[in-house]
Amino acid sequence: MSKDKGFVTEITPQSEDFSRWYIDVIKKAELMDYSPVRGCIVFRPDGYELWENMQKELDQRFKDTGHRNAYFPLFIPESFFNKEKEHVEGFNPELPFVTEAGGEQLEEKLAIRPTSETMFGHMYAKWINSYRDLPLLINQWANVVRWEKRTLPFLRTSEFLWQEGHTAHEDETDARKETMQMLDVYTDFVQNVLAIPVIKGQKTPSERFAGAVDTFSIEAMMKDGRAVQAGTSHYLGTKFAVAFDIKYLDRENTQQFCHTTSWGVSTRLIGALIMVHGDDRGLVLPPKVAATQVVMIPIGPPKTREVVIGKTDELFAQLKAAGIRVRVDDRADVSPGWKFNEYEMRGIPIRLELGPRDLENGQCVLVSRVSGEKKSVSLDNLVAEVQSLLAQIHDDMFARALAFQQENFFSVDTLDEYKAAMDEKRGFALAGWCGSEACEKQVKEETGATSRNIPFEPAEQKSKCLVCGDDAAHTVVFARAY
Amino acid sequence: MSKDKGFVTEITPQSEDFSRWYIDVIKKAELMDYSPVRGCIVFRPDGYELWENMQKELDQRFKDTGHRNAYFPLFIPESFFNKEKEHVEGFNPELPFVTEAGGEQLEEKLAIRPTSETMFGHMYAKWINSYRDLPLLINQWANVVRWEKRTLPFLRTSEFLWQEGHTAHEDETDARKETMQMLDVYTDFVQNVLAIPVIKGQKTPSERFAGAVDTFSIEAMMKDGRAVQAGTSHYLGTKFAVAFDIKYLDRENTQQFCHTTSWGVSTRLIGALIMVHGDDRGLVLPPKVAATQVVMIPIGPPKTREVVIGKTDELFAQLKAAGIRVRVDDRADVSPGWKFNEYEMRGIPIRLELGPRDLENGQCVLVSRVSGEKKSVSLDNLVAEVQSLLAQIHDDMFARALAFQQENFFSVDTLDEYKAAMDEKRGFALAGWCGSEACEKQVKEETGATSRNIPFEPAEQKSKCLVCGDDAAHTVVFARAY
Repeated sequence: MSKDKGFVTEITPQSEDFSRWYIDVIKKAELMDYSPVRGCIVFRPDGYELWENMQKELDQRFKDTGHRNAYFPLFIPESFFNKEKEHVEGFNPELPFVTEAGGEQLEEKLAIRPTSETMFGHMYAKWINSYRDLPLLINQWANVVRWEKRTLPFLRTSEFLWQEGHTAHEDETDARKETMQMLDVYTDFVQNVLAIPVIKGQKTPSERFAGAVDTFSIEAMMKDGRAVQAGTSHYLGTKFAVAFDIKYLDRENTQQFCHTTSWGVSTRLIGALIMVHGDDRGLVLPPKVAATQVVMIPIGPPKTREVVIGKTDELFAQLKAAGIRVRVDDRADVSPGWKFNEYEMRGIPIRLELGPRDLENGQCVLVSRVSGEKKSVSLDNLVAEVQSLLAQIHDDMFARALAFQQENFFSVDTLDEYKAAMDEKRGFALAGWCGSEACEKQVKEETGATSRNIPFEPAEQKSKCLVCGDDAAHTVVFARAY
Repeated sequence: MSKDKGFVTEITPQSEDFSRWYIDVIKKAELMDYSPVRGCIVFRPDGYELWENMQKELDQRFKDTGHRNAYFPLFIPESFFNKEKEHVEGFNPELPFVTEAGGEQLEEKLAIRPTSETMFGHMYAKWINSYRDLPLLINQWANVVRWEKRTLPFLRTSEFLWQEGHTAHEDETDARKETMQMLDVYTDFVQNVLAIPVIKGQKTPSERFAGAVDTFSIEAMMKDGRAVQAGTSHYLGTKFAVAFDIKYLDRENTQQFCHTTSWGVSTRLIGALIMVHGDDRGLVLPPKVAATQVVMIPIGPPKTREVVIGKTDELFAQLKAAGIRVRVDDRADVSPGWKFNEYEMRGIPIRLELGPRDLENGQCVLVSRVSGEKKSVSLDNLVAEVQSLLAQIHDDMFARALAFQQENFFSVDTLDEYKAAMDEKRGFALAGWCGSEACEKQVKEETGATSRNIPFEPAEQKSKCLVCGDDAAHTVVFARAY
C-alpha cells in the first residue's frame, strides 16, 4: 500500500480543530476510508487489525466467563420489533428495510438488525424448556446497521461491527449478576488493554437501552473533553421474555419467565482509543492492540548496510519468536528521518534504531512513542527490554489519560454555573439531579450535554438538583458526547 | 442447553434417506436451527464453533501468505453491478435490495453484498497508484446474501458466512500465481484439517464465476455421491480493473490496468464435513476442528464416585493444559450408556472412560469415534496417547473418505452409458468433452449432473466427447452437486 499518500497533507493540530485532527489522522494512518454508501466506512487493514486484536482479548474473556459464540440472521421480520413496545419506538427510526429480493417484492419487509434481542428472544423461546437449560449464555460477533443521520468514522457509522451478548437466567438475582459481571469485563478490557480509564455507572431512565429495565455503562473522556460510551450492559428483566414467550419449568415444576440480559461493545472503541491517546504527531496506539508493536529501522551509511540489515533480520526473528508484533522497514530509498515521522504518525509504540556504531557496542536504541524517550539497550537482553518497555508504555498511556480525565472533571451546583463553566472548561461535570426527566432535558437543551451515567463511585455526593434545586436523588455525570 | 431434546427422534439411516439423515443429524446435534426468515439459519454454538476453528486455521494460512484482513461495507450501490456485464447477469437474480431506511425511500437502491468484487474494485481504484502499491493482498471475513430459491442448511442458505480474498497485481503471471497459491491453500486446509479429499481442477466456461477469466475449484464427494464445491479461486484478468478503473503507473511510468483475483470458502464446508464423515449414529467430527476433541466420562458405583471424579478433574486439567479441547460429563442422573450414545451422535472424536478398576490399574479407556476401537492406556502417558489417537483419527477419516471417493469414481464414454451407470452407481463420472456448451447442457438436462471441473490430474485421459462423439478437448468430472 502506498506509504507516501498519507504525507500529502499536514495533520491539523488538536488545539486548532479537534474534529479535523481526528479525520486527518485516521485517513493519513490509513485506518479507514469513506465508502460510496452514506455513513458506511471501509475498515482498512491497519484499522481492522486493531479490531481483530480487541476481538481476541474480549473473546477470551467471554469464554472464560462461560459464554459461547453463535451466529444469528442479519434479517429480522418487521413484526418482531412490534412485540416489545419500547424497543420498537427506540429503533424504528433507524431501521433499513429489505423490501425486494430475487426480483420480487417481499410479503413482509425484513429489517437489517440494529441489535438482536428480538431474534435471540424468538430462538430462546424454542430452546429453553427447563431450569436445566439455564443459564443460556451466548455471544455473537456481527455487523449491525442503524441508519444514522449524522455519522463520524468509527464513532457513529450506519454499519458497524460489534459483539452482542444475550443471556437468559432463572431469576433476577442471577441476571443482575451477569449484567454486572459483563460491565466488569468491559471495564477490565478498556482499562487494561486499551489503557483508557472509564467512569462506571448506571444510565438514567431516558438514556436506557430501548426495552431495558436498567442500563449500565462505562464512559470514557476524549481529549476534547467529550464522552464516548465505551460499553453497555443491560438487565432486561422479563420484558423480552414476556414479548417472546421465553419460559421455563422451574425446580417446582412451575412455568416461569426468564430474566434476560444483553451487553455489547463495538468498533467505536477504535475511535475512542484514537481520541484518548492521539497527539499532534498522529496516532498513539496502546501496545496490547497495536498491529505493529515495534518497528525496526536500520540506519547508517551504505557501506555498513549489509551487516546492519543482517543483524536486524536476526533480531527481528528473536522478537517475533517471543510473540512481539514487529516489522522491519529497511527500504534504502527512504530516509530514516522520514521513517521516524511516518511511524510516529502511525502510532507504533516502539521504534528500534540500529546503526553500525550500535552494533559495535552490542546495543540498539529504543524510542517510546508516548514519552519520546530514547534508551540504549543491550542486544543480549533485547526481548526482555522490549517487553518491559511495552508494559511501561501501556502504564504511561493509562496514567496520562487518567490524569487528563481527573483534570477535566469538575463539579457544579446549578445550571447557570454549568453553562458558565462550559465557556472555559471542557470535560465531565458532576452535578446533583432530582430524578425528573424535565430537568435532564433542560440541561441538554441549554448546554448540549447529556447525562452520561450515575457513577458508582462519584467524587462527591451532591445534595441539590442543578436545575430545579430540589433534593438530589442522584449524583450524575453530565457531558457532551459523541 | 437441553441435552435431551435431541433424543426425541431417531436418526433416519443414510441408506434410507440421505437428505433426511442430514437434517436429523444437524438438528439433533444442535448445530443449527431454522430461523423465521426464509433460507436463513441460526448457527448454534456447536455449529458455529466448527466455523471458528476453521477460521483460525485458514486465517493463519492467509496471513502466512502475506494477506491482511479488512472490512468492506455490506451495502453496494445497484449501479456498481452494472459496471461489469457478466457479473451483473450472474448475480442480479439473487440480490436483495434495501429500498427504504430511516423511514424514507432511498434515492438509489442498495444491494446486500452477494460477493464484493465491485466494492473492492471501487476502493482499489482509489488506493492503487503505482507498482509500489502492488500486490495488494486483502481478505475479509463477512456475511453475504444470495436469495436462493431452494435452500439447505449450511450448504445453500440465503445468508451465509465466508471469507473473500481480493488481490491486485502488476501482471497476469503474478495474478495467476496468486490464484493457484490460494487454490493450494484451500486444498491443504480441506484435506489436512477437515480430512476431506478433493479433486482439484479448472471450471468449464459455463460454470465460471460471473466475471472471471478462469475459475478453479476443489470438489469433494459426499456420502451420497454428490459433489460439493469446497472452494474456488478466480483469475479475473483485467475485467474488474477495466470496469472500476484500477490502474497503476508501471516501472516505465506507463499507466496499466491491474490483474485481479478473488477466492473464497464458506460455511458450506460445515455441511460438507458432515456429509463426508457422518454415519448412522450421527456426526463424526474431524479432530482438528471439533469443538470438543475428548469427552471424559467417569463411571462406576456411587461409593467410588468421589475418587473417580477427583482423578477425572486432575486428568482434565492435564489435557487442557496440553491444548486439547476436552470436557467432562460427570452428571450423576444420566447413565454412562446414554452418554456414550449422546457423544457418539455429536461426533466427538475420543471418549475417555475412567472407572474405579481403571484407576487401580493406573489406566483409562480411550474409544475412537471413527473406528469404534477401545484401548486401555496408561495415565502416566495420557497426553501423548490422546494426541497420537487424535492424529490417528484424522488419518483414518481421510483414508476412509479417500477410499470412498475412489470407489465411487467411474469412467464413461457416452451419455447413454452415463445414464445407465446412474441407475446403479453414485459418485463422480470422468468423461471426454468436446468443449461445446451445448453438449455440457445436454448432460445436465438428461442426467441432472453438471461438469464439476477439468481435473489437473485425471485418472485417465478421454479421447471423445461423451455427447457428440467428436474429439475431446478436455477430460471432465461430472456429478450431481449440492
